[in-house]
Order: sequence, then structure tokens, then C-alpha cells
Amino acid sequence: MINLPKGTRDYSSIEMNKRNYLIQIIQKKFELFGFEPIETPSIENISTLIGKYGEEGDSLIFKLLHSGDFLKKQILDFLKKTKNDQRIINNVEKHFTEYVSNKALRYDLTVPFVRYIVMHKNKIVFPFKRYQIQPVWRADKPQKGRLREFYQCDADIISFSSSLWEEIELIQLCDEIFTKLNFPIIIYINHRDILKGLVEIAGIKNNLWKNFTTSLDKWNKIGRNLVKKEMLSKGITSLSFDKLEFFFDMEENFYNKKKHLTIALQNSEIGKKGIQDISFIYNNIKNISLKKTKLEWNLSLARGMSYYTGTILEIVPFYNKSFISIGGGGRYDQLANLFGINNTYGVGISLGLDRIYLAMEHENLFHTISNSPSKVLFINFGNEEVLYAYKMIKFLRKKGISTQLYPNAEKIGKQFRYANNKNIPFAISIGKNEIHKNKIRMRDLQEKTEKEYDNINDVVDQLTKKL
Amino acid sequence: MINLPKGTRDYSSIEMNKRNYLIQIIQKKFELFGFEPIETPSIENISTLIGKYGEEGDSLIFKLLHSGDFLKKQILDFLKKTKNDQRIINNVEKHFTEYVSNKALRYDLTVPFVRYIVMHKNKIVFPFKRYQIQPVWRADKPQKGRLREFYQCDADIISFSSSLWEEIELIQLCDEIFTKLNFPIIIYINHRDILKGLVEIAGIKNNLWKNFTTSLDKWNKIGRNLVKKEMLSKGITSLSFDKLEFFFDMEENFYNKKKHLTIALQNSEIGKKGIQDISFIYNNIKNISLKKTKLEWNLSLARGMSYYTGTILEIVPFYNKSFISIGGGGRYDQLANLFGINNTYGVGISLGLDRIYLAMEHENLFHTISNSPSKVLFINFGNEEVLYAYKMIKFLRKKGISTQLYPNAEKIGKQFRYANNKNIPFAISIGKNEIHKNKIRMRDLQEKTEKEYDNINDVVDQLTKKL
Repeated sequence: MINLPKGTRDYSSIEMNKRNYLIQIIQKKFELFGFEPIETPSIENISTLIGKYGEEGDSLIFKLLHSGDFLKKQILDFLKKTKNDQRIINNVEKHFTEYVSNKALRYDLTVPFVRYIVMHKNKIVFPFKRYQIQPVWRADKPQKGRLREFYQCDADIISFSSSLWEEIELIQLCDEIFTKLNFPIIIYINHRDILKGLVEIAGIKNNLWKNFTTSLDKWNKIGRNLVKKEMLSKGITSLSFDKLEFFFDMEENFYNKKKHLTIALQNSEIGKKGIQDISFIYNNIKNISLKKTKLEWNLSLARGMSYYTGTILEIVPFYNKSFISIGGGGRYDQLANLFGINNTYGVGISLGLDRIYLAMEHENLFHTISNSPSKVLFINFGNEEVLYAYKMIKFLRKKGISTQLYPNAEKIGKQFRYANNKNIPFAISIGKNEIHKNKIRMRDLQEKTEKEYDNINDVVDQLTKKL
Repeated sequence: MINLPKGTRDYSSIEMNKRNYLIQIIQKKFELFGFEPIETPSIENISTLIGKYGEEGDSLIFKLLHSGDFLKKQILDFLKKTKNDQRIINNVEKHFTEYVSNKALRYDLTVPFVRYIVMHKNKIVFPFKRYQIQPVWRADKPQKGRLREFYQCDADIISFSSSLWEEIELIQLCDEIFTKLNFPIIIYINHRDILKGLVEIAGIKNNLWKNFTTSLDKWNKIGRNLVKKEMLSKGITSLSFDKLEFFFDMEENFYNKKKHLTIALQNSEIGKKGIQDISFIYNNIKNISLKKTKLEWNLSLARGMSYYTGTILEIVPFYNKSFISIGGGGRYDQLANLFGINNTYGVGISLGLDRIYLAMEHENLFHTISNSPSKVLFINFGNEEVLYAYKMIKFLRKKGISTQLYPNAEKIGKQFRYANNKNIPFAISIGKNEIHKNKIRMRDLQEKTEKEYDNINDVVDQLTKKL
């Protein structure tokens, strides 16, 4: 049985036309806001990726096997080492992986981008605004909307000083993209410093910070009870949880949320800083206004990646909030430190192409995309006729009209059926008869009409009018 | 030291703008000829890929390691099995790989395409003309023009009957693409059946066929002497080689080559079939004519992939024939048989994006590509001023003019330097002064002039005139 690895899929032409439409709009809007394209390789050194995504993320990185003689040598070395070493046997997959692999597929576009910055810093003009539209790979359990290979569309800014106007620009950018797609969204916003403040006032220990954010991030997916259960199992006390629960559930407008938090975090410096940042962004966005996007402060938003340090963002469809998230982002001011570069500030958004596709398909928003690039099929009557017709094929293509030749002189009915099945709207017949009369016969397959033309210019006129 | 795996590389914005220009033209021409886009995943089952590329190709496939608990179980199983089994130890990397990996990165776009056909055949309308522009991976020794990750741009036709018009269309398609790129090429053409005929008359045994084609394919790269040496070392006799040498070196026009071969292959049915095919293609192309492309019969062209069965093609730059090949293709009528589907006929071309890039860079053909997408930088004078200016930023973007805001209110000189370094042609200043006077100050950074405008519409007029 021929099949594909779990969590991977093919994209048909119909699907590709829709995907390309999405990519074109996203790319155009990225450039409209001054982001420049770069690409990084799919394969990175494991050392570049590991330790940036949290423990769970690290375990989902796809690793590549060494090849050839080197692989052989490494396995034999490994076999020698393991022989009587119970410590190796106990942790066999870790030790073993170090012997047989040092490369992996990229897990996101942010870490490779920061690696890019570090490697090329002398050639880059800062602030550096880049976009990148490429696939990433995660050995996650596949489920609806979660593939093991999927495209991300990222826009990020890295500079030597941070500015909240960057967040405002990114929110404006999302509004532009989704307004153009005619697909209203909600952008949830929150701030890691506010969460840090809440952790402070709830008396949760520092070493539980990652557990806290990882669990909290599931609030909208698995609900309050399961989050509480998970937090307790990870060492957070019931008392701490009860102190904070009120904030995660708060259904109030921005100003009331701010009022409650300002009181609660009055003694937390870091918490106050977070409130200040969020207010700056919220007030300016309010002044500038958004087209189709709603910006909503969501205090249970935490984001999974361990590299975020400030603002965090998540994007969901406006009419279907319980749909999987279609994008996210945030500020990661210390990520480059891990590569030995200090004082860089990063912020960005990442849109999930496959998720946007699914969500738009779900809301039936693709109806205007045409399925076939081809506009004209030339019926094949045999080698002589094709040779005679070929100059017309060339002429139509010169005029930018996508034209195909049916490859074989098969039964005419079969050739017309092909055009119909492919949604090719016109078919041109140049048989012996037409050559003799010096005519061009064209069939409009949608209107089911046929007409003879005297020359190819008339055909082009007719096609231009109809297409 | 932060670095990238051997044979991989980053692409800067300047490089990406050129690459995107190439991709756009190739994609547009593919669609003009009626090819439709599909995409297949980067990761395929090893069983799908293995045995399709020849022994050397198989050894260059990048394999992915299993992950998590499953990896652990597999290694422990393997360790148990190997203990006293000398047969396993002798061939350790092969046995081992079977335990710890069943997925690999795609090696080309042709085999995954055929796999696609087999899996989706009930939904596909044949003849199926698809294009695909995606990266492939090969664990080859990296050298100039040979990366371990590189993009291929493939156009293929699969149908239930073969037609040489398909080859003619593909040659026309290449001519269209490279004419549009203003980059003249030579397309070398040959036929596997002619090589089979030559092998027959030289008395080379059937089991040496793959060795013969693999070595012959290096004729243009390593030269006659080394090819002879390699062939002899692989079991082809000196007598056989001497019988054929004349053809590989023949510097004659098409008709003389045909004359010589017709005599030599008069008793080889398969050889005569090959000559007939090549003549059909050559004569029709001559009638239809090519714009900037030269079609040349090259009898030493053999192609490395073992799946080719008929016509074979290779593309090199016209003004630099000794440059690495920038594309190739051919007919592979039995490839789907390997997946259990008979009677399908395939033919296609594959363009190497990175090689075309290198060759065009070498001939300095990219001079017209602009480097920066951004046209306007808004100077940042502080939060109040930015908020005031933001409606103008939005207006310019609404007019499709790519506009950036400098994120921080840093020294004005530094902000202008940024615009200069980024090749952003215009900078707009809205400081306290301009707000007070209700004016917009715009600097033309190329002409080094500055002017005040009364309203944003005048600015747009000026920009539209200049950009």
C-alpha cells in the first residue's frame, strides 16, 4: 500500500490555487509594511534548535540520521560504548541520538531567524524587518488542523532598542491582511510581565513559571477544571490557583480589567510594567482604529514557547472563537542572548497558513478563486494539423492566454470531455476542414456555442472579452 | 560558534528578491502552458523513494530518526538482536537504519509526483499536467552549485498514452522561460533507446547498462579519458568502448549525426525507434522555431536517474556551456509500474532554481531587480507625533505604497541613515513644527531635496510620479 507518513499530506491544484492566493496577499501586505523576505534552510544544527522551545518542544524536533560510512563508524562506536554501561542503556535514545544525528528540521521560523541575525549581523541594517514564508516540522500527534509539516508566515522586527509601536504595527498588519481576505478576526493580547506579576502575588515559586504558563495556555482549549488539575499536579497549590482564577475568567471590558489588575498588582513592579505596556498598545490602537479586527485583552493567554518575554498575541476567527488559533506572536527580547548576542529586542507574528486555509474553507470564503489556469484547449487532429495550428497556440500564449494542446489525436469526444472536466472554458478545433477553409473554429464550453473565425486576432478579441 | 549544516545556506533579502523574480516568471510560464500547481510533503516513506534513483542516489537520501518512546524501544530491540550476530554487525548501518527510521526527505519532485498520481488517480483528470516548485534534499558532497537543499521547478505530464508533442511543448516552454529571463540556453537532447541501440552493437551486456549510462553521463564533465577508465573498471571492454567513442565525440550537424547513426543502428530495432523519435521532435521544433534557445543533439548525454526510458534533455547556458547544468528532464514511461500502476506515460522537465540563479548572476543578468520593497520611511519624533502621523501612514499604504515607521524616536540622523542604507527613496518628517504649521515634509533621498506639502494627496501624487 502506497501512502504518506502520518501527519503529512498532498495539496491538489484546487487547494494550491487557494493557498497561493493566501500567500500572495500575505506577502504583499508584509511588503506594504516594509518587511523584507529572507529564507533559511530547512535543516539546522540540533545545537541551534535545542533549548529554545521548552522541554515538550525539544522532544518534537525531527532529527536527521547521519549517512554512509560516517553513520557506520558512529554506530559501531556506540555499540562498543554501550556494552556494559547501564547508565547509557537507561537513557539509550538520548545517548544514541547524539551519536547518529547532529542535524534537525526547523521547528519554527523564529529561532532560525535569530540564528540568521547572529550569523549575518555585520551585513544587516537594524532595525531589521524581515518576513519568511516557509514550512516547519513538528513530530506532534497529528489531529485536525495539526499536521507534522505546515507553513508559517512570519513577520518580525529585530532591533537594538524596543518600541511598542512595533506591536501596534504588527496588529495593524494583521488587520490589513484579514480585512483583505474578508475574514474578520479577534486578536487576543496579554503580557508575560502581567503573568509574572500574578505569579508573584499568588506566591507561586519561580521554578514553577514554565509549568504555570504551559498549563494556563490551555485555558481556552481544555477549560478551567482541567487546567487546575494540571497545575496542582505540577506543584502549584490550590490556594495560589484560587487567588488567580478570577482574572482568567474575567469577562469585562478593557478598562475594568485594567482597574482590577492595577489594584491587585499595585505592589508588583513587573506587573505594573506589563499593565502600562498593554495600555499603551490598546489606547493607540483605539485611536488609530482597526478595520475588521477586534483587539481583546485575554488574561488567560500565556503562549507555549518559552522564548516570549513581553507582549503576547493570539489570533482566532471572529465568528468562531473556539476554532483552533490561526496565528500568534509576541515579544522575545532575550532570545539572541542564547546565541551570545546581548541587547537585541525582537517581536513578531506568525500566521499558520494551513489553519487560515481551514478556517476560511469552514466559512466558505474561497468561492471566488478560479480552479484552472488554462483558458483554451487546442483539439489534436493529428501531427499535420497540430503543426499547422501551433503558430496560433504560440500567438495566444504571447497574448498571455493560458493555452494547452491535447497531446494525442484521440477521439474528439474524449478531448472535449477533458476540457470540461478541467474547467477549461474554450476549445479550438483546427481539422483538415478548417485548414482547407482557412478558418478557426472555437467552442465556448460554458455557453455550449461554436463559431468560426477568420483569423486569430478575432479569436483573441473574443477571448479577451469573455475571460 | 553558531553555524549552519554543511551544504545549506541562508538567502538574504537581496537574494530573495531575485529568487522570487525567477519563481514568478517560471510559475507564470508553467501556467501559460496549462500546467497546474500541486505540492507534496517534504517527508515521504523511505519505501516510496528507495530503488528509484539508482544505487548512488539511494545512498544520498536524508533519513529521519524516529522519536520518543518508539525510538527507545527500537534501539533496545536492535541492541538485543545485534549482540552475537556477525551478519548484522557486518552491515550494521543498513540493519540499524531499518530499526530507527522509516521516513526520509524527498530527493526529487518526480518520484513523489508519481506517488501522488498513484494515490489520487481516481480524482485526477488525465492527461495530468502539473507543476511543482519546492526544495529537495541530497546528502551529496557540497561544492559550488551543489547544495544539500535546493529548489527544483518541475513541469510534468502523465497520461495513458505517450505523445512526442509533449516533448515539443516542454522544449517550447523552456524557450519561453529563458527568453523572458533574457538568458539564452542550449537544450541538449538524446534518447535512451539510441543508447540502448549503441550498447547492443558494441556487445555490452544488459547487466552493465546502468554502469554504462552513469559513466557516459560524465563525458562533458570529466572528459573522454576518465570516462573510458571508469567504464573499463566497471566491466565494459576496451573493444566496446572503442566502437562507440566516435559517436560521443561527433561534432556534426543534426542530419549528419542522423546519417551516421542510421547506418550504425540499421539492425537495432530499439535504436531505430530512438532515431525516429528524435527526428520527429527535431523537425517539428525546427518548423515551429525557438526564440533564444538552441536545440542540440548530444550523443554523450545519458542522465543519471535510472527512471528515464526515452527522450532525455539537459539545459546549459548558451554562452557558458561548461557551466554546470541548470536543468534537465526526460521521459519515464515505466516509473509508475514500480508502484503497481501500468500503462502510464510520463515526461517532464526540472529546472534548478539555485543553478539558474548562479548562472544569471555570473552573466550579470539581475541588474534590473530593485532591492527594497519599502518606498517611504516615516521619521519617528515621539509618541504624540507618531500618533498624529499614523493616519498618513495608513493612507499611503491604502494607496499601495510600501511604508515603514521607524520604531523609536532616535536621533534624526540615525533614522535618515537607516533609510539610506535600506535604499528607501523617501522620508517623511512630521515633527511638532510640521503639526503646528499643518504641513508634511518629505525628503527625496536620491535627489537630496526636501519639500513641504499641504496635504497627503499631494504627497501621493508626487510619489506616484517618482516611483
